[in-house]
Amino acid sequence: MKLHGYFRSSAAWRVRIALALKGLDYDQVFVHLRHGDQRVPAFLKVNPQGLVPALEVEDGEILTQSLAICEYLEEVYPQPPLLLGSALERARIRAFAYAIACEIHPVQNLRVLNRIKALGQDEADVRAWAQETIATGFDACEALLDGQAGPYCFGAQVTLADVFLVPQMANARRFGVELRWPRLRDVEAACQSHPAFDTTRPDRQPDAE
Amino acid sequence: MKLHGYFRSSAAWRVRIALALKGLDYDQVFVHLRHGDQRVPAFLKVNPQGLVPALEVEDGEILTQSLAICEYLEEVYPQPPLLLGSALERARIRAFAYAIACEIHPVQNLRVLNRIKALGQDEADVRAWAQETIATGFDACEALLDGQAGPYCFGAQVTLADVFLVPQMANARRFGVELRWPRLRDVEAACQSHPAFDTTRPDRQPDAE
Repeated sequence: MKLHGYFRSSAAWRVRIALALKGLDYDQVFVHLRHGDQRVPAFLKVNPQGLVPALEVEDGEILTQSLAICEYLEEVYPQPPLLLGSALERARIRAFAYAIACEIHPVQNLRVLNRIKALGQDEADVRAWAQETIATGFDACEALLDGQAGPYCFGAQVTLADVFLVPQMANARRFGVELRWPRLRDVEAACQSHPAFDTTRPDRQPDAE
Repeated sequence: MKLHGYFRSSAAWRVRIALALKGLDYDQVFVHLRHGDQRVPAFLKVNPQGLVPALEVEDGEILTQSLAICEYLEEVYPQPPLLLGSALERARIRAFAYAIACEIHPVQNLRVLNRIKALGQDEADVRAWAQETIATGFDACEALLDGQAGPYCFGAQVTLADVFLVPQMANARRFGVELRWPRLRDVEAACQSHPAFDTTRPDRQPDAE
């Protein structure tokens, strides 16, 4: 398999974590988002959405969207599972991942922040936009874990929820968000000592700056 | 089952379509988003994220996030399926749905548009923001369907991709986006004559204005 990614893309990091959890080997192709590599014709042939990650699988077929890639990996390589328990429990794990993937990340990603800047907002306003987006989203995430046992989001095993939380926590730090959510902080700490999270960190990638 | 929704919420409409496709009965609770019903304490007990849809299932358990609800319905009521084919084909269907749920809808929803307005932008700027978001996203969606047979997004049967496309097409019309994507228009037309889409339309809901 071949992963088209960028060290700092939190969506690409999710896929690196999922691949590591499943114990899968892959090659990396680096798409420099700040240099605009995602908008060149050669990459648009890989992913017409102009986004990373994209994962090349069997016969050169290419999968896009980090959530779809994770669900694919879960179907094809079910062990160890990213989704656990009853349909209800699996829905809670997915809802937590989507609360990050659909409510936080799309509204604070580079593309949106550049558009906010283009509206005439200065750096401080753009940073405040990202901070508010993350804080509102993490308030909801902390509430979604109410009553759930640790050390991970949903108990003793890593799930899709943790795969999505840790990269978003890193984004929060990067934007200077005060991390006032004790449960989310505890989960992040538990994940940080797990090799699937540690070895896939942005600063450990070959394209890290 | 009891669906907490709002006639005009495209995320709630997705769930209405999925419930209709599965032939499931449910009661509706109306949460008036423009009146701020989603921020009152009673509703925050239902969904601490302050969002619709939320679906009450067995024993008063509450599911949130339209994607998680659809995946839950798919697991518990597998017929007729929303996801079809090989793992690769299922990943393509999911990626299309996520391209809408993660790239378009979060950046043009009411909450974000109100924040753009609060930055000092006028109505025309806010409308232009929504239009650009949808147009860029639909360019990608049209490309994702390249080579796929119709009449629906992925062939002869309705899938999760159609469930997510049709409400987003309605949003596009509402924001005055010129619908320049022939394949997306054809899929929408095919869905419009399908009862699961037609009976769940926003203007047919009891809370429609």
